[in-house]
Amino acid sequence: MASAEAVRDEDEMRKCIEHCLACHRLCLETLADCLQKGGGYAEPGRLQLLMDCADICETSARFLLRGSKLHSRTCFACAEVCGPCAAACEQKDAEHLMKACAEACRRCEESCRRMSGGVMPQPPNPEAAQRAADLPA
Amino acid sequence: MASAEAVRDEDEMRKCIEHCLACHRLCLETLADCLQKGGGYAEPGRLQLLMDCADICETSARFLLRGSKLHSRTCFACAEVCGPCAAACEQKDAEHLMKACAEACRRCEESCRRMSGGVMPQPPNPEAAQRAADLPA
Amino acid sequence: MASAEAVRDEDEMRKCIEHCLACHRLCLETLADCLQKGGGYAEPGRLQLLMDCADICETSARFLLRGSKLHSRTCFACAEVCGPCAAACEQKDAEHLMKACAEACRRCEESCRRMSGGVMPQPPNPEAAQRAADLPA
Amino acid sequence: MASAEAVRDEDEMRKCIEHCLACHRLCLETLADCLQKGGGYAEPGRLQLLMDCADICETSARFLLRGSKLHSRTCFACAEVCGPCAAACEQKDAEHLMKACAEACRRCEESCRRMSGGVMPQPPNPEAAQRAADLPA
Repeated sequence: MASAEAVRDEDEMRKCIEHCLACHRLCLETLADCLQKGGGYAEPGRLQLLMDCADICETSARFLLRGSKLHSRTCFACAEVCGPCAAACEQKDAEHLMKACAEACRRCEESCRRMSGGVMPQPPNPEAAQRAADLPA
Repeated sequence: MASAEAVRDEDEMRKCIEHCLACHRLCLETLADCLQKGGGYAEPGRLQLLMDCADICETSARFLLRGSKLHSRTCFACAEVCGPCAAACEQKDAEHLMKACAEACRRCEESCRRMSGGVMPQPPNPEAAQRAADLPA
Repeated sequence: MASAEAVRDEDEMRKCIEHCLACHRLCLETLADCLQKGGGYAEPGRLQLLMDCADICETSARFLLRGSKLHSRTCFACAEVCGPCAAACEQKDAEHLMKACAEACRRCEESCRRMSGGVMPQPPNPEAAQRAADLPA
Repeated sequence: MASAEAVRDEDEMRKCIEHCLACHRLCLETLADCLQKGGGYAEPGRLQLLMDCADICETSARFLLRGSKLHSRTCFACAEVCGPCAAACEQKDAEHLMKACAEACRRCEESCRRMSGGVMPQPPNPEAAQRAADLPA
């Protein structure tokens, strides 16, 4: 039974690596495309999120590929960045590439959230809750 | 008063960038040095932590330098990695470079912990607590 | 006819991106595996080449994904690093992962060499030739 | 005499690391600033060069910090990217940060050019010369 669990974990990790690498790639492609198109596509907030997301996806993949014991931390950060990035790419009039990027971000977010397994570093406090509430949804 | 606070925040962010970049650099130098020396220096767990730490410090610095709204997440992950990396370099017989690396990790950990401002993503659960307990001190 | 050429170029670029990303990934996996196994696997020269190769492959992929006009330069550097890294992984008794890594390095080297398209920065000089001759084959 | 040369080389390498890391940082800061300011500042070509330059400077610094035998290749690519990036930031009406970035790029270019020591990978050919001529000055 432990063995079935280990196989499942191995499988989840492998999928998470795929999702991180796919998301990393699509964020970079979408970033280049948005820059090229300009106008509303090149909205600074979105460009920044795409850069953030590409960077943390790459780092998260590195931790997973190395089999790092601390991958839950980078997976957590990755999930937290993928969410807002997906939201920034999910627009009514989003073109094909941006939509594909949003989907990759959602898959990566879900996968990384599972791999982050309840990271809970610090006791909650009101100031922190406020700061969290100020962050983009 | 709000202004004094803003200046303090700006100042903390600037220091955190310095600490991340300094830690990134020392981890890479120490990694090369440990590889070169071999034997006990090249203990796999330490080498892996040094790679982890260099990678997340670089990503954390990127988020801060970009003024990303999500830097608390990468700072949190960075603090969580710097701690174990410092511990792996704080050894009775550590040489100069490894000691300098441990100190840089500790400074970066402290600075990033403050910048992570109480990230508290998920309700605690026993499984998560167990996983956390299994991590290197 | 120019159009067929453009399609071919587009196709080569796409393949080069795949090869860089695949090589990046396999180098990181092989690095972790070698560290784990220790002994002759963890030979410092090989570990360093695997780190070098992972880093330049990632950067090369970024330039290509961004459609950077300067990608020939990073492709050139990538080809130059993939070659020695492949050689370090092509050993009589190499295990499956190391062999797969060597093959990924060779594919990436070939692809990047084509994309580097005759980078020729400086007039040759004897000192440079000597330095080049001192480098690992 | 060989010893004086070794000291000089060590010194040059140390300076080159500083220049790469300083350039990496200033490119990321300038990128964020240009994105924020928008308009002519956020000109796609410049943003792309700043991303290119940050990435290759980081990789070049990693090779140097690891003492990699192949650092001449990444230094060469770095010099080739720093030049155009400096040019994109050297504008009549450039603000303080952009000017500082241009200067950091020039210092890094010069330092990396020296460290690249006459990399001369391939015989010149007309097609390559043409491609090179098409690149941004």
